[in-house]
Amino acid sequence: MKPNVKIAYIGGGSRGWAHTLMVDLAKEDAFNAEVYLYDIDKKAAEKNAKIGNDLLAREDIAGKHTYVVASAIEDALTDADFVVLSILPATFMEMQSDVHLPEEYGIYQSVGDTSGPGGILRAMRTVPLYKGFAQKIKECCPDAWVINYTNPMTLCTATLYRTFPEIKAFGCCHEVFGTQKLIAAALKEFSGIDIPHKEVKITVSGVNHFTWITKAQYQNIDLFEIYREFADRHYEEGFELTPALSYKNNYFTCSHRVKFDLFRRCGAIAAAGDRHLAEFCPGKWYLENPEKADKWHFALTPVSYRIDDLKKRIDRTEKLYTGQEPFTLRETGEEGVLLMKTLLGITPSFVTNCNLPNRGQCPDLPLGAIVETNAEFSANSLKPVIADALPPLAHNLVARIVNEQQALLTAILAHDYDAVFECFAQDPLVTISYEKARELFLRMMENTKEYIPYGEEYLEKQKQPR
Amino acid sequence: MKPNVKIAYIGGGSRGWAHTLMVDLAKEDAFNAEVYLYDIDKKAAEKNAKIGNDLLAREDIAGKHTYVVASAIEDALTDADFVVLSILPATFMEMQSDVHLPEEYGIYQSVGDTSGPGGILRAMRTVPLYKGFAQKIKECCPDAWVINYTNPMTLCTATLYRTFPEIKAFGCCHEVFGTQKLIAAALKEFSGIDIPHKEVKITVSGVNHFTWITKAQYQNIDLFEIYREFADRHYEEGFELTPALSYKNNYFTCSHRVKFDLFRRCGAIAAAGDRHLAEFCPGKWYLENPEKADKWHFALTPVSYRIDDLKKRIDRTEKLYTGQEPFTLRETGEEGVLLMKTLLGITPSFVTNCNLPNRGQCPDLPLGAIVETNAEFSANSLKPVIADALPPLAHNLVARIVNEQQALLTAILAHDYDAVFECFAQDPLVTISYEKARELFLRMMENTKEYIPYGEEYLEKQKQPR
Amino acid sequence: MKPNVKIAYIGGGSRGWAHTLMVDLAKEDAFNAEVYLYDIDKKAAEKNAKIGNDLLAREDIAGKHTYVVASAIEDALTDADFVVLSILPATFMEMQSDVHLPEEYGIYQSVGDTSGPGGILRAMRTVPLYKGFAQKIKECCPDAWVINYTNPMTLCTATLYRTFPEIKAFGCCHEVFGTQKLIAAALKEFSGIDIPHKEVKITVSGVNHFTWITKAQYQNIDLFEIYREFADRHYEEGFELTPALSYKNNYFTCSHRVKFDLFRRCGAIAAAGDRHLAEFCPGKWYLENPEKADKWHFALTPVSYRIDDLKKRIDRTEKLYTGQEPFTLRETGEEGVLLMKTLLGITPSFVTNCNLPNRGQCPDLPLGAIVETNAEFSANSLKPVIADALPPLAHNLVARIVNEQQALLTAILAHDYDAVFECFAQDPLVTISYEKARELFLRMMENTKEYIPYGEEYLEKQKQPR
Amino acid sequence: MKPNVKIAYIGGGSRGWAHTLMVDLAKEDAFNAEVYLYDIDKKAAEKNAKIGNDLLAREDIAGKHTYVVASAIEDALTDADFVVLSILPATFMEMQSDVHLPEEYGIYQSVGDTSGPGGILRAMRTVPLYKGFAQKIKECCPDAWVINYTNPMTLCTATLYRTFPEIKAFGCCHEVFGTQKLIAAALKEFSGIDIPHKEVKITVSGVNHFTWITKAQYQNIDLFEIYREFADRHYEEGFELTPALSYKNNYFTCSHRVKFDLFRRCGAIAAAGDRHLAEFCPGKWYLENPEKADKWHFALTPVSYRIDDLKKRIDRTEKLYTGQEPFTLRETGEEGVLLMKTLLGITPSFVTNCNLPNRGQCPDLPLGAIVETNAEFSANSLKPVIADALPPLAHNLVARIVNEQQALLTAILAHDYDAVFECFAQDPLVTISYEKARELFLRMMENTKEYIPYGEEYLEKQKQPR
Repeated sequence: MKPNVKIAYIGGGSRGWAHTLMVDLAKEDAFNAEVYLYDIDKKAAEKNAKIGNDLLAREDIAGKHTYVVASAIEDALTDADFVVLSILPATFMEMQSDVHLPEEYGIYQSVGDTSGPGGILRAMRTVPLYKGFAQKIKECCPDAWVINYTNPMTLCTATLYRTFPEIKAFGCCHEVFGTQKLIAAALKEFSGIDIPHKEVKITVSGVNHFTWITKAQYQNIDLFEIYREFADRHYEEGFELTPALSYKNNYFTCSHRVKFDLFRRCGAIAAAGDRHLAEFCPGKWYLENPEKADKWHFALTPVSYRIDDLKKRIDRTEKLYTGQEPFTLRETGEEGVLLMKTLLGITPSFVTNCNLPNRGQCPDLPLGAIVETNAEFSANSLKPVIADALPPLAHNLVARIVNEQQALLTAILAHDYDAVFECFAQDPLVTISYEKARELFLRMMENTKEYIPYGEEYLEKQKQPR
Repeated sequence: MKPNVKIAYIGGGSRGWAHTLMVDLAKEDAFNAEVYLYDIDKKAAEKNAKIGNDLLAREDIAGKHTYVVASAIEDALTDADFVVLSILPATFMEMQSDVHLPEEYGIYQSVGDTSGPGGILRAMRTVPLYKGFAQKIKECCPDAWVINYTNPMTLCTATLYRTFPEIKAFGCCHEVFGTQKLIAAALKEFSGIDIPHKEVKITVSGVNHFTWITKAQYQNIDLFEIYREFADRHYEEGFELTPALSYKNNYFTCSHRVKFDLFRRCGAIAAAGDRHLAEFCPGKWYLENPEKADKWHFALTPVSYRIDDLKKRIDRTEKLYTGQEPFTLRETGEEGVLLMKTLLGITPSFVTNCNLPNRGQCPDLPLGAIVETNAEFSANSLKPVIADALPPLAHNLVARIVNEQQALLTAILAHDYDAVFECFAQDPLVTISYEKARELFLRMMENTKEYIPYGEEYLEKQKQPR
Repeated sequence: MKPNVKIAYIGGGSRGWAHTLMVDLAKEDAFNAEVYLYDIDKKAAEKNAKIGNDLLAREDIAGKHTYVVASAIEDALTDADFVVLSILPATFMEMQSDVHLPEEYGIYQSVGDTSGPGGILRAMRTVPLYKGFAQKIKECCPDAWVINYTNPMTLCTATLYRTFPEIKAFGCCHEVFGTQKLIAAALKEFSGIDIPHKEVKITVSGVNHFTWITKAQYQNIDLFEIYREFADRHYEEGFELTPALSYKNNYFTCSHRVKFDLFRRCGAIAAAGDRHLAEFCPGKWYLENPEKADKWHFALTPVSYRIDDLKKRIDRTEKLYTGQEPFTLRETGEEGVLLMKTLLGITPSFVTNCNLPNRGQCPDLPLGAIVETNAEFSANSLKPVIADALPPLAHNLVARIVNEQQALLTAILAHDYDAVFECFAQDPLVTISYEKARELFLRMMENTKEYIPYGEEYLEKQKQPR
Repeated sequence: MKPNVKIAYIGGGSRGWAHTLMVDLAKEDAFNAEVYLYDIDKKAAEKNAKIGNDLLAREDIAGKHTYVVASAIEDALTDADFVVLSILPATFMEMQSDVHLPEEYGIYQSVGDTSGPGGILRAMRTVPLYKGFAQKIKECCPDAWVINYTNPMTLCTATLYRTFPEIKAFGCCHEVFGTQKLIAAALKEFSGIDIPHKEVKITVSGVNHFTWITKAQYQNIDLFEIYREFADRHYEEGFELTPALSYKNNYFTCSHRVKFDLFRRCGAIAAAGDRHLAEFCPGKWYLENPEKADKWHFALTPVSYRIDDLKKRIDRTEKLYTGQEPFTLRETGEEGVLLMKTLLGITPSFVTNCNLPNRGQCPDLPLGAIVETNAEFSANSLKPVIADALPPLAHNLVARIVNEQQALLTAILAHDYDAVFECFAQDPLVTISYEKARELFLRMMENTKEYIPYGEEYLEKQKQPR
């Protein structure tokens, strides 16, 4: 007897991850899912529902899952077994301001959705939404497993736990996989052994997009030592995993020079794309200006690219919706459906990295903060595996961010935007004067104020003399 | 290329577990082991080496492993990849005193090798030996994985870490499996589903032989709730896993009545045989006298039985040695070789229970104490998985023991036998007056003094007036 | 300008501590107090108010304080600056059962109000009242300083914090002073130096009535070492602080033999009367039977004595009330008024021992548990001073009690009397069989059931078959 | 009988604090001190010894203490009761480089001896000396109380404890007094009440020169609220404690504008001179350039001033030595001798702030780090008082520094100057590019290399290609 599973998908009108989930579900027949799509853009959800349900007719598809549009979030959540959270807070117009307005002040951001000025402003829009989600989950499906995919990952997951401490939530991100691939490439280069990235056994610790590998092993080979030589050999020129893809022609790639440099400096393997890593470091290290990013071989992703890309994805979705284009069952590389199966007890327990409150798995970081380490997924159970303490210099970089995130969460939930600004002013990327920082913060807030509770009132008040 | 592996087996003259290891190795051809057998009874080691090497000639055996007798412990340890520790401290004559002398004082023990007066005296003999092992391992093979099988498990493992904190040691015990079998039986009884015990996914926490299950799951079935009903249903009569085996005809079995009772009282599933569980509880609960043990359906294992059994095992070994009896490849149920393969990176990582220093995996027990929880074994890595806090009443029973064990270790290592006695006097089984307890302790010590450093001096001094 | 201070006295009809407070206030003119007396025996409160107000007419009295009878507890509490809690839960008839019924089962108690069967039953009556007090304080005077004098001290104070975590409460007990006096006597005996007990500077750690001194100093003299010799010298015969008072003619005194014995055994100075100390140890050590108590030179205080004494105190109160007997300004030895003055910022800050939640001041005891250590009292501030970890054997005795108290508090607040019984069955004094313990518990509960919420229902249910 | 006390003074040739100690001792006759002066400049020690011993002849002087020159540090330390550590690591020429060379890179420092580039380089010279002191103390006087006055205070004290964990050391600094004076001034302004600074009862937490007051009280007046208004009222213009002294005419004063600003921003009262506070904040906040320091009303103390001042002090010392100028018994404001008397048990215990390893007194900072909080000094005892957690934004600023200091200590002790540089590059004042920071670090190190173990070798190696 296959179990029947209700999945609530918040942000179900997405033209990206929603389709990815459909692909993975389509291949899966160990359970029967009813997927409730909820989105503030209900039209988009409806289109996705049709795309999903059209698959039922296809003979080449194993899984028979149905898609339902939820008019109200409660409809999606009530009695759900799983809740998937994957939203875009506001639009790319706001992200445009998040990422590019700071450039006027000499602050460059390669991504701008996690940390730094852009990440902070994005958090100001997202945290209040997540507080609402947590309250609804508490009411409608307190026992559901909740999977978050939205950035800023740490703060989204932290909001869920701060609002509803008993929630069974975790944050999923495959950023670490890229570094496992790099380590696998090092092994191949040094010994000829060619293994998939999942065979690179790692111990990870840190926060999302700023995780660090303290141990890497394949069978009885210590990959950490191999990586040490590899990083030295490629330090100057960098190393490209996919030769055709270079930071010069692809906005999401890098040559890992930042990673090699951080390894030399800190003694652990930073495990995210260089675009992310650079944003957690003091601003003058890797993001002083576009030339410096270029020197370190990574791209500053312009939001205009994302806007263009969204248009393409909307077009593609339209074609899927109308049947002009067939839905293809590509390899997604995502673990979401596998995690569900494991939590359902269908597949054996396994260990992978995810984002959870620190119960001691990061022995050198504050308890309660959301951290990313390995954890054991098994039948209706998710338990962190204890990681290593980070080397001191990596620890200090990470601790600074964790402390910022903790203060930021408190400040945003209290609608205390003076305190939010103080976090902003202490952020590693904000190397400008206090006065300039203040001006920038207020301008950024102005551009996104309608998405921020009491944002307008706050800005009005700033115009008065103290 | 199969890896070559050196295994040092301390206690390699054993007629029990040494043969078990041989069986499991014989089935294993993923690596080539050279097993160094070291034993103070060198003759016994030599016989085992011959038995082991004779297998090389057999065609039905996959693994080609060789056995070497080590004259000195250093020969065994130097550059070993794995160290197996499995010894009998002193002989069954000393155990006879450990277990049965207290009966003269109204203290009954069902096992007598882990806790209570017998466990304490055994620890006094064993801890000094383990201190020596740890020192030798530090010198000869500091990077080896060390697997302990000797009781008292907690104190042996604790001695290793106290002496050489960087040691990569863990304690292995399959006591928990029996309770998983019981839970599987409950599932079968209630739903007809028949699963092997390994499919019962559990969260365990506590100390060896006094571990507790706080969560049990099979797929999406909550086995904890099923167990609750099962324990109630069988509370009065008990439940026998193997109908032919009863505590009345087998000294190692039980009907789980103590387990059911502790579940009712404490709200978690005690996960060891009732003979062990009873010894960690206040003496008047289950071990007030032999009638009470009978009432609760478990046996008080007499040491005379062990002596008889040893004779049989010596005979059998002799027959194996001379070839009179063939070496059979039975199912051992042991995980030792599997753990080695996993630590070698040959098999995928997996999670099982083992004994390690508490780094926070037992959030309600003192850091540094040896605790038993789940842990992830993977290539050259062993990391604890964070367990749940125990329900308060189970916690209090366990915490009392942990505190006793910590104080006991310090006292034995300092040869402070006054302090050892104070632990003895605080032990849950010692419900007699201080004066009687003192008399018993000195008599027990007298019976085993030759195995205790400065034991004789101490006893002499007690005869002087203070 | 002297500050005006409102003091709410809950239990204000008392014939003991209420008068003590009046004495100390009468001597104090640094502030003007209005003392609201609240008692369920309103008549008794009225008499005390008259006694207190009569002092206003006396010329020899410095402090001009007024006493008001509060009809409702809210009247006393509203806007109070200080709340004094000092009640007798139920009557001495219930205490008669608490202390003496266990004797039928071979369990002897020297006090019976803190720990052991008597302490547990008393807690079952008291904790629910304290939950109510905490709720009222939260409503009426959340910023008041709350001083608790009621036993069981630890559980009363713990209830206040569990119910209203922001409460500014502490527990006061001068039990430790007696041990400082003993140490001063040791100094006098060894060196001729005669100092008041307050000059014995100590580091204390533990729980109320089971505190331990880990360091004692007078100027540059290490009193710990002097005590060591002193304890040895007087080990056999004991030592009486007031020669005229012996445990043979006074129910509240002792010869400190238990204290000397615990020092030898554990390496720290237990700092309470032997009658209390004995009750925290395994039952067979010092309380096996009345002869043993006699051997160790301490009295088992009969409740009949307390009943007689109460009659005398009622008589005396009547005489004070009618003016037949003058109110005398004796030396009380209490610190209450001094603490108030210090918290008001009138007198300099000072350090003394008190009962507070563990925020790390007892590094080896669970966080959050109520512990007794030194703390700094200063203007509107009370902060614990970090104490030493206890020696292992003292730690284990204390930790066992702390764990019991924590579980007991949870169980009583949940009205879960099965769980309360499990604490009872694990208590050090309960060395009898589980079945006998159960019978005793139910009989004790029967005798006090009217004071226990849902007590009657629970007892009824026990008469049904399970 | 007055106790005889041996004081070892390391750095006893000083022309500053050595004289201060003489003044305070001269007034003190509760004990007889023999002060051993040790200095690498033995001549200077000899002059100080004569100055000190000359006082013996003066009739107006209470204390009769003698001064001895120690040729070897062991002579000073052996059997000392107190060790005073007060040295200048290297000379003001090195400090010139520490403070002013960074200005070429746009990094301004107002003090340059605690944190920032100057503090780090100073630590590189000082930590190795302190490691030696700790080793000698362990050998010669392990039970002595050790008082440190040298900067960087935190790292000096940390080195003592890292080297000899059982040391009885603490760091003394009266920086906090200045802020108590400011709070007293606020009280006077608002209420007319004029109190000495010691009457301002405070709770402090943080690290030396970056401590924060979370509670300030005088009697029943909450000074925190008064300070809030005071800070607002004087925010723009600042407030000068001594009207004649302004940051414009005195290099050590400030108008507390930074303090007021940090209060607004962080919600706690930073308790050090603004010159120190500014150095712990991101460089662009208060130290962007000299104009900004001027805007915030504090001085950048030039080392040339210190050089001039030293000349004056040398002259004055010469005059004291030759008797040309009389030794005057001014009010020093120092607590050193009072602390000694308290530790000797001569004066009652009292609570003041000092620097100690964190055993939980700063609940939000890492255990083991040197922190500054209140502590109770009493007879042969020093115990921290538990402080409050800091408000989040103050916490983040402090935690960043604590983490830097911990990593720095490890790096310097390991002579790992690459790791030292990484701390340098993460320091809040180092807002320049990584490349520029590296160049600056190497140049600074060049200027002081002779005082740094393996300094020259390291610099040589940097000239080779990697």
